[in-house]
Amino acid sequence: MSTTADTIRNGVDTAQLYGTLDAIKADPTLATFQFRARNRWIEGAHNRTTIRDFYAANQEDTSRAEEFVVDAGEPAILLGTDTGPNPAEYLLHALAACLTTSLVYVAAARGVHLTEVESTLEGDMDVQGALGLSDEVRNGFERIRVSFRVAGDAPEEKLREVVARAQQRSAVFDIVTNGVPVTVDVATA
Amino acid sequence: MSTTADTIRNGVDTAQLYGTLDAIKADPTLATFQFRARNRWIEGAHNRTTIRDFYAANQEDTSRAEEFVVDAGEPAILLGTDTGPNPAEYLLHALAACLTTSLVYVAAARGVHLTEVESTLEGDMDVQGALGLSDEVRNGFERIRVSFRVAGDAPEEKLREVVARAQQRSAVFDIVTNGVPVTVDVATA
Repeated sequence: MSTTADTIRNGVDTAQLYGTLDAIKADPTLATFQFRARNRWIEGAHNRTTIRDFYAANQEDTSRAEEFVVDAGEPAILLGTDTGPNPAEYLLHALAACLTTSLVYVAAARGVHLTEVESTLEGDMDVQGALGLSDEVRNGFERIRVSFRVAGDAPEEKLREVVARAQQRSAVFDIVTNGVPVTVDVATA
Repeated sequence: MSTTADTIRNGVDTAQLYGTLDAIKADPTLATFQFRARNRWIEGAHNRTTIRDFYAANQEDTSRAEEFVVDAGEPAILLGTDTGPNPAEYLLHALAACLTTSLVYVAAARGVHLTEVESTLEGDMDVQGALGLSDEVRNGFERIRVSFRVAGDAPEEKLREVVARAQQRSAVFDIVTNGVPVTVDVATA
């Protein structure tokens, strides 16, 4: 067997993973990241975000060949024309994607070969808040439920441990459950 | 001038907007929404979310002709192959999109014609948290900065009021700044 084949698990190069961890342990300044998004309003509920550059490991990361373009919208009942998922649905996607990637990386590090990871997310919202009809109702989701279905070559207990550990380490899970300070500046033209 | 042209502002049908608000005032049960996302792991940091159905106004909403498909990934430095923006970047997109749509709707309701809405978002993260290298560092963003550039046919003060009001009503701004309870269930196969 080749060394490469041995180190890749769940599509994650575990040798590179451990190398990254060792590099950051030796120089914690490498862990300072900044992610970015640029959004432009198009019309009505249609707006578009471009994502490409970010800061990592003490420099601007220019490794991405192209920018990503992501469109948002609203369904008809919320006065849009379905030009994309709505912002709250994108938030559920961000949470699902982060928990899943964390799960896959944790499994790779622990020697668990996964065969299937699926999740369904539901967020309950009383839109009286966001529509300005009630100050007693919050604007955002009241609660979010995540249901994972996970299969792999480990006993059920170990698979559950991997999911629990992923939850403890997911960036977006932390953001969504604990909140983050956000500042908003405005320039008018 | 036609009535239709009069009621559409910033691409938002304000007659429909006020009709929706009146309908919910008359029957607040119409405000109960549930948004959903389904995610499937593909390989490594690559996973895919599909979004279509949701619950609104006391029924399943089946108005969307097609499902939306959204791919996530990670850049090379985070062991991925750029199969899409990463989950933290999608969270910034969700926040930008929600603030922008709120701003556009508020402006429409207040008679402000917008000509430009752009925003840049930056989120600072020390990845020692998410990588499990430090328990003193949080996993998610330490802070998020949003910079809006807004132009329209209203005085600067009114444009700033519209942005402030959008912030007070944005669902994702509420979620990201205040947090939401999340439950995670696991089924193994």
